[in-house]
Amino acid sequence: METRKPYDIDSLTDIALRVFAERGYDGASMDDVARAAGITKASIYHHVSGKEALLERGLGRALDALFAILDEPAAREGSAGERLRVIIARVAETTLHLLPELTVLFRVHGASRSERNAVERRRAFDRHVTAIIAQAQRDGDLRTDLDPRLVARLIFGMSNSVVEWYRSGSLTHEAIARAIVAITFEGIRRR
Amino acid sequence: METRKPYDIDSLTDIALRVFAERGYDGASMDDVARAAGITKASIYHHVSGKEALLERGLGRALDALFAILDEPAAREGSAGERLRVIIARVAETTLHLLPELTVLFRVHGASRSERNAVERRRAFDRHVTAIIAQAQRDGDLRTDLDPRLVARLIFGMSNSVVEWYRSGSLTHEAIARAIVAITFEGIRRR
Repeated sequence: METRKPYDIDSLTDIALRVFAERGYDGASMDDVARAAGITKASIYHHVSGKEALLERGLGRALDALFAILDEPAAREGSAGERLRVIIARVAETTLHLLPELTVLFRVHGASRSERNAVERRRAFDRHVTAIIAQAQRDGDLRTDLDPRLVARLIFGMSNSVVEWYRSGSLTHEAIARAIVAITFEGIRRR
Repeated sequence: METRKPYDIDSLTDIALRVFAERGYDGASMDDVARAAGITKASIYHHVSGKEALLERGLGRALDALFAILDEPAAREGSAGERLRVIIARVAETTLHLLPELTVLFRVHGASRSERNAVERRRAFDRHVTAIIAQAQRDGDLRTDLDPRLVARLIFGMSNSVVEWYRSGSLTHEAIARAIVAITFEGIRRR
């Protein structure tokens, strides 16, 4: 008989996020999480206070990963245009790497305290990128006829869409990130 | 006392779609629809057999509007590249014009027969556009280093994202559609 490593809060969060991504957070119950984990609901409550705590951990992972991108050397050095290129590629790669986390984040609409906090942090991230776009426009590296906030929304709209259609085994994360950067940049760069 | 025009199936569908777009289809109940309409649930069932029938009508509107674009003269005449440009602009405008319908369509994942039909029709639409992209690549109007199917997904990912952030009164539909075409095309057009 196989022995399975006992669950901890991190591995339970992994399972919960896959369930939330598949069924929607509102549509998913702790029974669904317990079934996916193959343990009783009581065992889950031994590790975590409830569904929202699992959501909060998942949203935290997603947002921590996005903000970590901004601290990478390549996202902090060079011109605004170069930094933007790095950030867009890394956001796409991170979205694909943490697909359940980002899927759940992108669908959150602020129904609970955890969701509202996540929406706030996402907005702060978008404002940061919008400021970089505006700087790159002032630098003359990007076309100036497009509103920087609209550009940020549309780029992330394109990048975030991968959670809706990506299935592993099709294209590599890097190929998708490259395509996103290619379509984006050759569109917004001034020529 | 004001008299209100009695509801018919179309005006009830309008209300249901706004409720579905706001709460999510799975999270919305017929009680929510009745409350939003200000009538009893029994009155709604006088017009419609249930929640899925309202969803089906909404998805039908969204998909009929998308397919109608392909029949517009400007989407049928000219080079593949020109037709693609028209289709992308018109899809964005249609998404903004029928925001609740398209919001609900873009979130559908095939949980019921109506949803699976809608997913099938959406895929047929995407295949049509993918074929136009491939033709425009062969014509030499678009860069050829990007997979046409990936390009279609990313463009519609960008365009569909408006349902997540658009609030009326900010930018005009036309300005948003122009930005989407500008970012897209100057990215995918060969130079």
